[in-house]
Amino acid sequence: MDTGPGSAVEKELAQVEDRIREAIDSQEPLLTDIARYVIAAGGKRIRPTVALLANAAVGGKNVSQTVQMAAALELIHSATLLHDDINDGGLMRRGKEAAYVKFGLQNALVAGDFLFVKAFQIGGKFEAEIVDLTAQVCTALAEAEIVQRRRAGDLATTREDYLEIVRRKTGMPISAGARIGALLGGGRPEEVEALTAYGLHLGTAFQIVDDILDVVGNPRVLGKPVGTDLKEGSMTLLILHALNDGSERRAELSNILGTPKKSEALVARGLTLIQEAGAVERARVDAEHFGFLAREALEDVRPGPYRDALARLVDFVVRRNA
Amino acid sequence: MDTGPGSAVEKELAQVEDRIREAIDSQEPLLTDIARYVIAAGGKRIRPTVALLANAAVGGKNVSQTVQMAAALELIHSATLLHDDINDGGLMRRGKEAAYVKFGLQNALVAGDFLFVKAFQIGGKFEAEIVDLTAQVCTALAEAEIVQRRRAGDLATTREDYLEIVRRKTGMPISAGARIGALLGGGRPEEVEALTAYGLHLGTAFQIVDDILDVVGNPRVLGKPVGTDLKEGSMTLLILHALNDGSERRAELSNILGTPKKSEALVARGLTLIQEAGAVERARVDAEHFGFLAREALEDVRPGPYRDALARLVDFVVRRNA
Repeated sequence: MDTGPGSAVEKELAQVEDRIREAIDSQEPLLTDIARYVIAAGGKRIRPTVALLANAAVGGKNVSQTVQMAAALELIHSATLLHDDINDGGLMRRGKEAAYVKFGLQNALVAGDFLFVKAFQIGGKFEAEIVDLTAQVCTALAEAEIVQRRRAGDLATTREDYLEIVRRKTGMPISAGARIGALLGGGRPEEVEALTAYGLHLGTAFQIVDDILDVVGNPRVLGKPVGTDLKEGSMTLLILHALNDGSERRAELSNILGTPKKSEALVARGLTLIQEAGAVERARVDAEHFGFLAREALEDVRPGPYRDALARLVDFVVRRNA
Repeated sequence: MDTGPGSAVEKELAQVEDRIREAIDSQEPLLTDIARYVIAAGGKRIRPTVALLANAAVGGKNVSQTVQMAAALELIHSATLLHDDINDGGLMRRGKEAAYVKFGLQNALVAGDFLFVKAFQIGGKFEAEIVDLTAQVCTALAEAEIVQRRRAGDLATTREDYLEIVRRKTGMPISAGARIGALLGGGRPEEVEALTAYGLHLGTAFQIVDDILDVVGNPRVLGKPVGTDLKEGSMTLLILHALNDGSERRAELSNILGTPKKSEALVARGLTLIQEAGAVERARVDAEHFGFLAREALEDVRPGPYRDALARLVDFVVRRNA
């Protein structure tokens, strides 16, 4: 877990892992196995890190509540990964077989439900505002899945449509983590709002970098093939840039997007078109822009080492290669 | 919705429907459509009815909290139906196409998550005991799905194994409804325990009748074909009875259970064997037995018209034909 700036809350992140391990203990070993598998493949622990840093940045003393909610948010994230992989047909995640491939679709589906429940068992012990925030995150995730599928290959998709999907899919979960951490830490109202905005911008930057890596990432480092967004017709920011660069590439790329079962060669050709259009560079500018907004939002948070760590987290997210 | 004894709480059941309708309102109309579809197909509203009757039976005055939790339990039930149909491959439910057939697996999967979240958004506003009860129900449902699949076609399955699966799959959800209704109604401790036991026995009787109807039910009344349990190798009480009646039918029925893709003719032959073994009659005795235990549990509840309605609900459940 190289979380970079997460090192400022390393001890607390270890407590989050303990809490997760405790939550996924089941009488049915298979459920625990699947849960462990997907949590291990879950990656960077961005959501817990943001929640813990936000809590510390506003001077939160009693960190144990934030540890609980950080665990809940990571459980929700893991549940989503299980169900998303089923829905997207993605075969690999972080260099390992997707859970539904390894354990079977039915078992993976049930394990996703199990993780949602465990998250809510934790979250349900908190005050109504936090219950609602947690539920809003999950609702937004479900809605984003639906919109994303509805928009697949839709050439009329705008940058605003894209940003709205990203807000629900990646922005809100990270933003909710930041807000919950700030609320539980007793942050001043303007700090709570600032950290909420920070999380939203950071999440947006995170997703744009994800989209970039799906075009120019190293499959060995990513642990999965590139081009999956294009294959699924997912209207990423890079694809939107490439479609709208005013060149004749649009026609060819539109054709590729509209092809139902894309061959490897066709996907490779599409990735070339996206790169030739300068979409990667334009998306990097976008990611930097949202990173800038995230850092700017931090101005309303009291100065200190944890605010600095939140700023470093932006750099980590924007510059990551996996 | 012919809930029989539910007529004693007809007004409150209508409020539950309103609360459900409110909960499933989404910015994505497709999610609302799928949710409405599965809730309409959900059937008898046993869980809300039990919760409302238990509340009224202990003299609960402020019914609005029980209406909330009754809605939450029905949302969880509906989420489970969506995901179970995906997992079991059942094509029909109550005379309509299964939701995943009509709307697609991916959309149905996400809609199930959405319903779970909406249930927990309601449940999370209650005290910790009720949050834990709700989470235990969902955990039990997930675990039951796993055990049931693990046990599929397993000739070593015992009556105790069966009853443990049923406890988690049907007993606990109904029992939790009864317990929550009694707790929110301010029931005396012995009433809370009595209604918890009532729900468990009622749920067990309910499931045994379900198993019976899968052998001798009228497909037109059920709205789905019979024999699906046998087809899936689900070790129902009837199959256990038929395997253990000491006759030579065991070998043939074992063979059928062990056949991976069973033809219609083979399933029909299996149903005949089950009936010839007298398994239907034995299972009816079992259902009556658990119905008796449910009625017996009611003795610790103060007498009154709602206790009587709970007793009538037992007859309704045991004698239903759909």
